[in-house]
Amino acid sequence: MEEILSQVFGIWYLIGAAFVFFMQAGFAMVEAGFTRAKNVGNITMKNTMDFCLGTVAFILIGYALMFGPGNQFIGFGLDPLFDFAGTNWALFTFNLVFCATAATIVSGAMAERTKFISYCIYSVIISALIYPIEARWIWNADGFLALMGFHDFAGSTAIHYVGGICALIGASMLGARIGKFDKDGKPNGIPGDNILVGALGVFILWFGWYGFNGAAATNGLQLSTIFATTTIAPALAAVTTMIYTWVKYGKPDVAMTLNACLGGLVGITAGCDAVNALGAAIIGIVAGLIVPFMTWLLDYKLKIDDPVGAVPVHFACGIWGTIAVGLFACGTDTMPVPVGLFYGGGFGQLGIQLIGLLSVGLWTAVTITLTFYAIKKTIGLRVSAHEEIVGLDLMEHGIETCYAGFAMETETLGGSEEEIAAVETEGLAPYQPTVDLKDAVVTEVVHGTPKLNKVAYLTNMAGSVKLKKEQEKIEIGGMTVSNVMGMGVEKGQTTYYRGAKVQSRLLPKMQADIVVSEVPVEEVVKAAQKALYTGNMGDGKIFIYPVSDVIRISTGATGKEALDYEDHPKA
Amino acid sequence: MEEILSQVFGIWYLIGAAFVFFMQAGFAMVEAGFTRAKNVGNITMKNTMDFCLGTVAFILIGYALMFGPGNQFIGFGLDPLFDFAGTNWALFTFNLVFCATAATIVSGAMAERTKFISYCIYSVIISALIYPIEARWIWNADGFLALMGFHDFAGSTAIHYVGGICALIGASMLGARIGKFDKDGKPNGIPGDNILVGALGVFILWFGWYGFNGAAATNGLQLSTIFATTTIAPALAAVTTMIYTWVKYGKPDVAMTLNACLGGLVGITAGCDAVNALGAAIIGIVAGLIVPFMTWLLDYKLKIDDPVGAVPVHFACGIWGTIAVGLFACGTDTMPVPVGLFYGGGFGQLGIQLIGLLSVGLWTAVTITLTFYAIKKTIGLRVSAHEEIVGLDLMEHGIETCYAGFAMETETLGGSEEEIAAVETEGLAPYQPTVDLKDAVVTEVVHGTPKLNKVAYLTNMAGSVKLKKEQEKIEIGGMTVSNVMGMGVEKGQTTYYRGAKVQSRLLPKMQADIVVSEVPVEEVVKAAQKALYTGNMGDGKIFIYPVSDVIRISTGATGKEALDYEDHPKA
Amino acid sequence: MEEILSQVFGIWYLIGAAFVFFMQAGFAMVEAGFTRAKNVGNITMKNTMDFCLGTVAFILIGYALMFGPGNQFIGFGLDPLFDFAGTNWALFTFNLVFCATAATIVSGAMAERTKFISYCIYSVIISALIYPIEARWIWNADGFLALMGFHDFAGSTAIHYVGGICALIGASMLGARIGKFDKDGKPNGIPGDNILVGALGVFILWFGWYGFNGAAATNGLQLSTIFATTTIAPALAAVTTMIYTWVKYGKPDVAMTLNACLGGLVGITAGCDAVNALGAAIIGIVAGLIVPFMTWLLDYKLKIDDPVGAVPVHFACGIWGTIAVGLFACGTDTMPVPVGLFYGGGFGQLGIQLIGLLSVGLWTAVTITLTFYAIKKTIGLRVSAHEEIVGLDLMEHGIETCYAGFAMETETLGGSEEEIAAVETEGLAPYQPTVDLKDAVVTEVVHGTPKLNKVAYLTNMAGSVKLKKEQEKIEIGGMTVSNVMGMGVEKGQTTYYRGAKVQSRLLPKMQADIVVSEVPVEEVVKAAQKALYTGNMGDGKIFIYPVSDVIRISTGATGKEALDYEDHPKA
Repeated sequence: MEEILSQVFGIWYLIGAAFVFFMQAGFAMVEAGFTRAKNVGNITMKNTMDFCLGTVAFILIGYALMFGPGNQFIGFGLDPLFDFAGTNWALFTFNLVFCATAATIVSGAMAERTKFISYCIYSVIISALIYPIEARWIWNADGFLALMGFHDFAGSTAIHYVGGICALIGASMLGARIGKFDKDGKPNGIPGDNILVGALGVFILWFGWYGFNGAAATNGLQLSTIFATTTIAPALAAVTTMIYTWVKYGKPDVAMTLNACLGGLVGITAGCDAVNALGAAIIGIVAGLIVPFMTWLLDYKLKIDDPVGAVPVHFACGIWGTIAVGLFACGTDTMPVPVGLFYGGGFGQLGIQLIGLLSVGLWTAVTITLTFYAIKKTIGLRVSAHEEIVGLDLMEHGIETCYAGFAMETETLGGSEEEIAAVETEGLAPYQPTVDLKDAVVTEVVHGTPKLNKVAYLTNMAGSVKLKKEQEKIEIGGMTVSNVMGMGVEKGQTTYYRGAKVQSRLLPKMQADIVVSEVPVEEVVKAAQKALYTGNMGDGKIFIYPVSDVIRISTGATGKEALDYEDHPKA
Repeated sequence: MEEILSQVFGIWYLIGAAFVFFMQAGFAMVEAGFTRAKNVGNITMKNTMDFCLGTVAFILIGYALMFGPGNQFIGFGLDPLFDFAGTNWALFTFNLVFCATAATIVSGAMAERTKFISYCIYSVIISALIYPIEARWIWNADGFLALMGFHDFAGSTAIHYVGGICALIGASMLGARIGKFDKDGKPNGIPGDNILVGALGVFILWFGWYGFNGAAATNGLQLSTIFATTTIAPALAAVTTMIYTWVKYGKPDVAMTLNACLGGLVGITAGCDAVNALGAAIIGIVAGLIVPFMTWLLDYKLKIDDPVGAVPVHFACGIWGTIAVGLFACGTDTMPVPVGLFYGGGFGQLGIQLIGLLSVGLWTAVTITLTFYAIKKTIGLRVSAHEEIVGLDLMEHGIETCYAGFAMETETLGGSEEEIAAVETEGLAPYQPTVDLKDAVVTEVVHGTPKLNKVAYLTNMAGSVKLKKEQEKIEIGGMTVSNVMGMGVEKGQTTYYRGAKVQSRLLPKMQADIVVSEVPVEEVVKAAQKALYTGNMGDGKIFIYPVSDVIRISTGATGKEALDYEDHPKA
Repeated sequence: MEEILSQVFGIWYLIGAAFVFFMQAGFAMVEAGFTRAKNVGNITMKNTMDFCLGTVAFILIGYALMFGPGNQFIGFGLDPLFDFAGTNWALFTFNLVFCATAATIVSGAMAERTKFISYCIYSVIISALIYPIEARWIWNADGFLALMGFHDFAGSTAIHYVGGICALIGASMLGARIGKFDKDGKPNGIPGDNILVGALGVFILWFGWYGFNGAAATNGLQLSTIFATTTIAPALAAVTTMIYTWVKYGKPDVAMTLNACLGGLVGITAGCDAVNALGAAIIGIVAGLIVPFMTWLLDYKLKIDDPVGAVPVHFACGIWGTIAVGLFACGTDTMPVPVGLFYGGGFGQLGIQLIGLLSVGLWTAVTITLTFYAIKKTIGLRVSAHEEIVGLDLMEHGIETCYAGFAMETETLGGSEEEIAAVETEGLAPYQPTVDLKDAVVTEVVHGTPKLNKVAYLTNMAGSVKLKKEQEKIEIGGMTVSNVMGMGVEKGQTTYYRGAKVQSRLLPKMQADIVVSEVPVEEVVKAAQKALYTGNMGDGKIFIYPVSDVIRISTGATGKEALDYEDHPKA
């Protein structure tokens, strides 16, 4: 029976590993949703790579350091890649997915400004070196913290605190995103591009956390209490933060409450098997206060920019969860003696928990600082200001945008004048006052008869394809295209939404604007008419507006000359 | 062996609970995808809170009412929060996630117009009181319906019908969204903001439903038949609705078909263990007819606005699923005797099923009506018309938009004149005819020389950051910014999509428009040129257009005075 | 004990089936994310329907062909719908979800241009006929390939290669999307609308793959090695492709790397139980080279348009995975003798694997070609060019857009002149030169005084609702509406993002443009003022611009006549 139950829990152990793998999707969605649209592809790539590169690092080096024969601090000699039969592959897979979680945490705090190559390097070092060694201390039965009685069932310390330290040091060494702090140090909120996707990520993470916390359970009673504590703590954390933000800002804050769910989950992770429902509730409530407090501390006092809240969630609640074991461990299947301070266990366990935090913290802080320092001094940690403004998707991965199906919002940035100045000069020519505004401009503006005209087409989507081709033929230099809704008498197709007619005379239209000098107006209009004519009312209209003048910024040329691109010195 | 199998199915019971938890993500996505962008954060928050507040309510009150020692109708005395060892935590967690499902259903039907605080209150009452008591009747072996032989394996009645009643009564007492019905009562389709996200939600729900229906299975044969019926019914429902809408509207309707999947799942929930494949197929087909019929009934006859279709899916198919047990129960592991009418079981079981529906319906309808009534008479159920138009994200949670990375579509609303009038007057000053249009307007329009000019910049994203700073220096009062695609000779970076060059001379550009009076044109242009100049062709162009006049609506001022914001009496 | 373990793995088998079901969500997200916004509803519907129609087909026909009594090639006589007790429902459900996967693969390669009715037909034929028969050969113990020793544990051949062949032949017979290839055959990248959603799909698929590959395991050791190989292969594939694209294009490509994860998963599927870690790593690395190579081959040599990369992933890596068993099978629980060429097993197994590929390939290619041919000759495979340009959501399902909450990007299309010409003429009247541009146009353009004026409102969202109503009253024929960001002195609500103030003077505004002839300007402005006036600064402004002329394309009318829709001959 013993053997069968071990087989049974062995399957659950692997299902749990799959749940933890799925948390990579959760992290990717949280990070992509809580940052800006221009960096979403980069975040996706980083979340894919910390797992994939992490697999390489863990199989080649990390697994041996963690589980190979050795001493209380480090292991050697195991080679899973070449010793298939000698490797415990359930243990390998399970610890690999955990390891990747630690690495992923860092990417959130350092999002939107870290070089991709640098990310790859430190991600590998975490998976190959930093995590396996401290995890050996905690989770290998021979590790010195394990022998001491340090209790971290599912990794408040081993995963979240370690990831959080790297996140904190990384975000600090990297510096804030342009626009995060004003000249006077006042922090600006930089809204995430898609809170709904962030919320989906939180739900996926919470779901995965049942595997994260529960997978290592070895009997049904233990597993059921783990499921209960893993539910109670995040629920209470979320309620607490919601009330806190409601009182403080007058409105219940969505993003912070979502963060609090994660804070509660991190907080319960170390003691999920060792505390009771009341303990879990208190752990959750405190986590629900820690998350907004730590967020405020980073923004207003420490001036560290953590775009997704990785430090409050993983670092601060990781510490809290580890300590909480020493306070609330109450005598359960795993820890039959109630060692928690509040359950008469005295300060013993609490002391051990602090020793664990201290030793793991020291190891992680020193190694990750050296790692970041070495990267900074060689290839650099941070992209240029220009790359940051334009976005990592284009600059690091050559994607114009990850959301090609959507019109992107103009970025709204605060930021100090120094930062703006940096953007202005970096890698680009400075302003040359010799190229100045010609007098002609204002004159033409004031007086009437248009020598320049804007031809504006309003047409449907099929038209836009044809129009583009025609315009190329008559070699129009510049055209701007935008999406508008046209309300006209033309009826669209009758569309239904869940059986009810959609009453909309606003149909999606394309508007294309071309500014031309006097002569080609007729030609342009004829070309357009030819392109767009089908005889149906949906063909659209062409509007012609007078233009006073146009100035090409790079040359200072005005009027026809500004439109004429052959004249451009660099063309 | 008995004991081991019980351990084994105990693990699956908890994995199933995790699947059901994940359904919260499904509900959130369905609701957010099928409503409008301006309320997405509110929906996310509500879905988070019905689970988190529900946890508090269920641990403090609900669990005791459901499973505490007591009589056939109500239980008392159990206190899970303070009696850790005495609580069955697997049972607790499992029933908690079910309970949260019942509460979530309501939020969909009442979406886009319910006060958040009111939502929190009634959500707590459902989790603390309404659900636990009726669920005791059905799922506690001592409950009066359980003793009577009422069969509701996974909750067509206990969860979906109960949630559906609350949804129906709630939506009815709340009234329709502004614009849902025209003056003459004709319903308008108000399309959801993101059908793809809604579809993702449906897939997540279906996936979670294997846990929802299967988790309580106690042997492998039973579990495999549950998986089969849980697959067949929604598949047949979707096919039926697709064909139905294809015939009725000429095209197969996506949103309704997605709803039908859920209807089929709700329909099979009560009898998933008790019917055979043929029964499951018929249950699915009928559910696939019920969903579009009930949707039509709500829209065209009852005039009740249910934005996501919670009533057709959960209320109507919940009733159908409960009745279907009495028709199709065919003799399986759970119900060895074929009690279904069509399997020779007579009307006995059918009668019991109807008694169950009646008693649970009565209990739920009375309690939820009292709840809504009490809320309506005190703090109110519904937000103001102004809050509804602007959106709950901003008004209830202080988020400008949840989709900050995307340009939002202008809302297209129908609606009666009374509704529009309500929007116009509510909380705002009425139109004052004394502030009237000055004669100057038309005069200036007709005659030529521009005293006002529009300066329009077309530049890249880096430029937009710098431009904003420069504009602030010269104290331009107003600027409008929009995203356009610029097609010019300037080549963008070469970008690839899956190895093929992306042929696009349309690059994302920012267009910024400023209207100024005659004098500052030169100053504005110079400032812009200074901000944008780098010497590259991508610097962009500045266009100058004549403006006939401008009127500030709130004061009636025209021309320069309209632009000059210092003059504004309220500034 | 044997019996208990069989019960235990029976539960896992069903959980695995649920994981595989969830892969439908993954496929839907990958396909919707990697194609264009206008076809997202159609893709959703197809992914729902291949599962739902597939269920009907598999229960009525497919299951009997696969598992009914019969010979080595085909089975008959089983009728699961009417023989509930005689059917193995675990086996049924499991093979159904696999079957639906094979059908889904095809939809990706044929996306954005296939008729929905035709999709439904061939999807049913795959589920009813093509898959069940070849899967009998491989997975029924009596199948001729199974008897021969062909090894395809989880379906590199049975699912992915088969789906891939259908995808390849389908995409080829269908032809490329308009704009995919230029006149000279040069391929254009057509970026997917939402790479993040595509990435979510990849994560969901990878998660589901642990069920896909692992569900049929029968002991813990086997399951743990399957989890390990299923992790190692995709990780190595992704790393390989990332490095490959980094070297080739100068930047690590996101979409291709995501595809490579799937390629690695397909590659390991046949031998996941039979190779060791090193074998899995090599399989992954080769898959990571195959994916970009095959993508290039399709684009640049074969000129076949596969929008989501189904052929490289499922066809090419399916072949590779099948062959790899013959190379790397190393002696495991499933295959105790090391039959792989590189493990001293000689060419025997390799030969059998090739026979399997050949016979299954032949069967699939012939049947699917006949299927597509029959459809093409009767109802047609492909939508019209006009339908393709406008999008399948509107044309096939009557949805204006699936993303109603978002402004859609203008499509950017390349494509040959023939294609454009096809768009122009198909189903529409040709250009009629008799309706020509009137002389008046240019004259009016050149000379000053405006007879036409554009009235442009800049207002808030509440205003837009009221404005629309007022405009209807005064019977304005046409209005275009667009979203802009307005930067003014008006302060918005103070909003916070994670506790920090959002510094943005850019508030979302609606801009509505109406072009009117001289007379009604005053009337229009008054109506607007009445609609928008509340006395608050947020009421907005009205700008009036001179317009030189307007031409209605369908009639050639200019000036007032062009605006006046009553004159339109077809109105």
